[in-house]
Amino acid sequence: MADFTDALQPADPQGPSILAQERAGSNIEVEQLAQHLLSRNDFLSRQKKILSILEPIPIFSKKNQLNMARPDRYHLGLARAKTLRRLSLKHGWDREDYLMADYLMDEMGPYALQATMFATSIREQTNDEQKAYWLPKVENWDIIGCYGQTELGHGSNVKGIECQAMWDPKTKEFFIHSPTITASKWWNGALGRTANHAIVVAQLLLPDSKTGKYKSYGPHQFIVQIRDMKTNKPLDGIVIGDIGPKYGYPGMDNGYMLFSNFRVPHAALLSKYSGIDSEHGTYIKPDNPAVVYGSLTFVRAQIIMHARLILARAVTVAVRYLSIRRQFSDRDSKDPGAPEQAVLNYPTVQIRILPLLATTFALHYTGEAMYKLYWGTRQQIEKTGDFSRLAEMHAASSGLKSLCTTLAADGIETCRRAMGGHGFGGGSGMIPLNNEYLSKPTVEGDNWMITQQTAAYLIKRMTEVVEKPNLKPTDSVDEQFQEYFMSTKYYKKNINTFDVIGYPIALVRAFKQRASHLTYQVYQARVVEKRPWTSLMIQLHRLSRAHSESLLVTNFYNAVYTDTPDPPLDAATIEVLQVLFRLFALFTLDASASEFLVSKALTVEMLQYVTPAIQDLMAKVRPHAVRLVDAWSIPDYVLESALGSYDGDVYNRLFQKAHKENPLNLLTFNPDWRSEEIVMGEGEENARRRLEALALGVAGHEQQAGTVKSKL
Amino acid sequence: MADFTDALQPADPQGPSILAQERAGSNIEVEQLAQHLLSRNDFLSRQKKILSILEPIPIFSKKNQLNMARPDRYHLGLARAKTLRRLSLKHGWDREDYLMADYLMDEMGPYALQATMFATSIREQTNDEQKAYWLPKVENWDIIGCYGQTELGHGSNVKGIECQAMWDPKTKEFFIHSPTITASKWWNGALGRTANHAIVVAQLLLPDSKTGKYKSYGPHQFIVQIRDMKTNKPLDGIVIGDIGPKYGYPGMDNGYMLFSNFRVPHAALLSKYSGIDSEHGTYIKPDNPAVVYGSLTFVRAQIIMHARLILARAVTVAVRYLSIRRQFSDRDSKDPGAPEQAVLNYPTVQIRILPLLATTFALHYTGEAMYKLYWGTRQQIEKTGDFSRLAEMHAASSGLKSLCTTLAADGIETCRRAMGGHGFGGGSGMIPLNNEYLSKPTVEGDNWMITQQTAAYLIKRMTEVVEKPNLKPTDSVDEQFQEYFMSTKYYKKNINTFDVIGYPIALVRAFKQRASHLTYQVYQARVVEKRPWTSLMIQLHRLSRAHSESLLVTNFYNAVYTDTPDPPLDAATIEVLQVLFRLFALFTLDASASEFLVSKALTVEMLQYVTPAIQDLMAKVRPHAVRLVDAWSIPDYVLESALGSYDGDVYNRLFQKAHKENPLNLLTFNPDWRSEEIVMGEGEENARRRLEALALGVAGHEQQAGTVKSKL
Repeated sequence: MADFTDALQPADPQGPSILAQERAGSNIEVEQLAQHLLSRNDFLSRQKKILSILEPIPIFSKKNQLNMARPDRYHLGLARAKTLRRLSLKHGWDREDYLMADYLMDEMGPYALQATMFATSIREQTNDEQKAYWLPKVENWDIIGCYGQTELGHGSNVKGIECQAMWDPKTKEFFIHSPTITASKWWNGALGRTANHAIVVAQLLLPDSKTGKYKSYGPHQFIVQIRDMKTNKPLDGIVIGDIGPKYGYPGMDNGYMLFSNFRVPHAALLSKYSGIDSEHGTYIKPDNPAVVYGSLTFVRAQIIMHARLILARAVTVAVRYLSIRRQFSDRDSKDPGAPEQAVLNYPTVQIRILPLLATTFALHYTGEAMYKLYWGTRQQIEKTGDFSRLAEMHAASSGLKSLCTTLAADGIETCRRAMGGHGFGGGSGMIPLNNEYLSKPTVEGDNWMITQQTAAYLIKRMTEVVEKPNLKPTDSVDEQFQEYFMSTKYYKKNINTFDVIGYPIALVRAFKQRASHLTYQVYQARVVEKRPWTSLMIQLHRLSRAHSESLLVTNFYNAVYTDTPDPPLDAATIEVLQVLFRLFALFTLDASASEFLVSKALTVEMLQYVTPAIQDLMAKVRPHAVRLVDAWSIPDYVLESALGSYDGDVYNRLFQKAHKENPLNLLTFNPDWRSEEIVMGEGEENARRRLEALALGVAGHEQQAGTVKSKL
Repeated sequence: MADFTDALQPADPQGPSILAQERAGSNIEVEQLAQHLLSRNDFLSRQKKILSILEPIPIFSKKNQLNMARPDRYHLGLARAKTLRRLSLKHGWDREDYLMADYLMDEMGPYALQATMFATSIREQTNDEQKAYWLPKVENWDIIGCYGQTELGHGSNVKGIECQAMWDPKTKEFFIHSPTITASKWWNGALGRTANHAIVVAQLLLPDSKTGKYKSYGPHQFIVQIRDMKTNKPLDGIVIGDIGPKYGYPGMDNGYMLFSNFRVPHAALLSKYSGIDSEHGTYIKPDNPAVVYGSLTFVRAQIIMHARLILARAVTVAVRYLSIRRQFSDRDSKDPGAPEQAVLNYPTVQIRILPLLATTFALHYTGEAMYKLYWGTRQQIEKTGDFSRLAEMHAASSGLKSLCTTLAADGIETCRRAMGGHGFGGGSGMIPLNNEYLSKPTVEGDNWMITQQTAAYLIKRMTEVVEKPNLKPTDSVDEQFQEYFMSTKYYKKNINTFDVIGYPIALVRAFKQRASHLTYQVYQARVVEKRPWTSLMIQLHRLSRAHSESLLVTNFYNAVYTDTPDPPLDAATIEVLQVLFRLFALFTLDASASEFLVSKALTVEMLQYVTPAIQDLMAKVRPHAVRLVDAWSIPDYVLESALGSYDGDVYNRLFQKAHKENPLNLLTFNPDWRSEEIVMGEGEENARRRLEALALGVAGHEQQAGTVKSKL
């Protein structure tokens, strides 16, 4: 529909010319930096290749997603999942291609568990016979699977799950059974409406050979067909459904499932590491339970690398939009007609956005370091059977998972709020980003809980170092603690050695000093004073954060000051990265300044220079901000943001989205309160019936089945 | 549908018996405390009365809200708004009743502007003639109105809006005109699909009587009919629509609007305070522009009182659910079968929830103090024409609006995350709460921007106090600064006077000391060193926060230590409130400890005792937590939360919601990737067409109009 708005333009200056100017004002080589950040697995070329396939396909359009009913949204999710599977065959995609398509489509859909948790269990937990039977079915996608661990009553505490697999020595079968409502499987992706097979985690119950009394051998994995292959209805003895709406993930059917003495054969128990002897019904123990947790650690390393791209997405939108948005002229200006300032020029906006820009790089270099540690450890285990580095890796990965996902989740919201009114609107692209990422601080280990693992490790190492002054260090933590004790003597005389403003290396040392000091305090409380673990939990959490921040700062420092950048970077770019390092480290220090003070890693005098130093560093970053986010190479299709698109045409895009792409605007309404009619022309009686059915949902649907056709 | 799950119960212990035990373990008189908190405007009895009317009406059911398409959700919003209007006539509701219904229904709908911004403008900005014409139409709801101020390109900076009202001396009319896309009105509630009239804020442009050149006299309000009263279509020369989905407010049609030289009569300019002489076309200046901003201050006072109830809602859900939820047994327990602990017993959970519980009371007592200040100031203005207290009130209201809405918005998310997996689910009730409240840090003055107003006032008062040592204090800020200078001399010798652990009054003094010190620093930088305003913005923001926290702490202290509680409280309850005061103050101090250290309101030695003290106070609050949230009296209908309902039947409610109230579970799907079919039986061709149309939204709707009937 043509109207007079077609002839209008936004007021000057135009967004695209502002971004062009911003880009002209920085000497950062965007493509070089992009290669430096995103060369792993040919990320950039792969992104280009897959994007060109997905973007033109209508059902991958993201335009209408926020307008749809939940059931429709799931339908679309399933259709997209199917299409992706067919595309991967047609184009011969490898696993990395498939993951890229997932990333670009930006939707956790009903097939998401098939190639991940479901396939991983089949691949890693089956014995040879099981693998030969199941793996081809999984890899051909002849069966669609899900992973059923979490229950209504138990999440993090896996040992406490209630679902039972009771061995029947007579029939040589298991009865899978849910004794209570809280034993219901819950949250499991793809279970709700899609999957026909499930990995079910259940307490393995075996009868004592003498007394016949059942005893639990802990949670084990079973493979179970749950739905009929023709009708896709649940099998008899199983109740399944979708748990309903949640934050984000509207295209995914997170499910619930209960069993009523449902029989599965002996072969259902995945038996690579443990099993039961079907003849005698005795338990076969796993060799080394640590192996079972190896993949969790890898998942956490991936989470950290994912966090950096997610945060980069939020920062990209914020930096571009806030460079374009003008608001208020300089208060000190004497000219009443002085032009309005770019919002990103205000220090109160910079302090929210630019440290987060620096954080994307901090996460990146720690993610890289984590990958190296993971592959190194894995190689060591496979080659030499040496598990000794597993503990350090696990401790680092727990604390870092907690810290990095918290930084990203909070960072998204910080960016969103900094964008004011338009950040609140659907055109920002921030709504799905925020909604979906908010699960990350909870899943794969709750961010407050898993920090205990990091702290426990640090206490253990501190105990060793204290008790054995001549200990040969086994890892970098030992070295750090030994350094702490040596330096404590020295720094007593010369506290100003931590010149965190003047020397980048002093920042690294200050973070280590603080982490070491907090470890020593907790060691004192726990090991020396024998205080209860629970009473120390707040300190343990803070310790884990301190240690993890120290890792981020150290890895960032090493990457931009000591290592040779690989792929290479020119000197001008390295200089900007060094500024970002100092900004990240000082900002992080400032946020926990009192811990640095208590740890004697900072003085109250020095503290007063921190905010001015941060402000100076931000002024140095500001001219490069647009090019720095460009380097993260987030396509417009992923941003799905009128505010953050590469071209900067913010206002035309916002207006287009509202004026041409909003289905609500197709209807005209009756605003008169005296009339029950809602849509012009539908009549009063129809309106009332339709809306009551909608409000009541299923109940309304059933009540009105005779008169109103369901819209679902 | 009956199935085997009907016979199942959650595992013991049952939620209801846990909450009964929690309630038995505290001696707080819930009803007495509820009266104390909620007696203003008969809140409690009114809540009971209105709830009994609303809850049984089907379209007020909240069950299905998260499943609905945006257009349906607006339809429902309009139907509810109409019903509310009819109910208010039927039952003879007064304004407070109506507001209560709004609060309980918990939905900002298409009539929300009618009785607020629209009516307020008509009431307060019209001259007698205008009022006589418009007010009856508004009060009879013969016209439906909205308030059009914010534009696509301008929000906070009202002076910068682009919409023009150009006076035509020949026809004695105004042309309302949008010269650009960014001049489009944007965000205005009820504008998108509903309102037939609007208050339009536009630059008043008058021609110079000699040169004929137009000059702007700044933004003014006009009343404009925007849609046809019969068809509800926009009038010629106006383009209107809904801006599309956003965080929350799905039942509200936030709109956009542009004008193309649209003529309105001279009487359209609301002319109580200013106007133009229609004969000579000259501008009539307003007497005192301060009056115009009076209502904004009142809105902010209401926002603070609203924030406390919103935060109380989140804390209610969290406290009840986390008392019931069990996870892990005590790590130090020697019994391997030790029972799992209530999650609220963990200090890492307490530190997130219990200070927020204390915050609800802190907000309450400051809200009460703000109301007193507002009405006192208004009385003073009306009786004596004395505007002198307006500045202090405005400064306090700006900083407090910023701080209190930030505390509530962040607090909701903190509560949600503390609830782990179920906090992420729709059964938590946290999704709409979070989504809608997230607008508050932005609207009615952006939380980072308006703090400048508070800081500017403090600098002004500090300048006075420094320059006039014998100044007679005009307000409490002057007194505080004078005290600061006196005490600085004294405390140099005796720094330990701020014993914030031992003495509650020391907390009040420490907060004042910090706020005064930060003011003095900013005064030095701005007034003495003449540093640019923009360069100081971060410090200004921190200063405002420090001052506002000082107000919260002072008002809370006065309420529980010095004032006589009104309505009264027994001694046991007051004692708990005193513990909550100390918890709030120490927790707040800890979060900004470095500022207290720099301000010499705290020593590094004292700081080490703060966390243990907080932990002790939390242990004292813990047994009263359930009763304390009960006192806030949030009905289950408002909570709409399986986790937070009064009876504690968490798991049965969660399961019921998923198993019986989820429309997605009515359909069976085809999971086979080889088939395009989605819903079993719909066929491949239909599925593809339907889903493409859905994905493309309006475009799909238009493309497919011939073959697929729109579902909207």
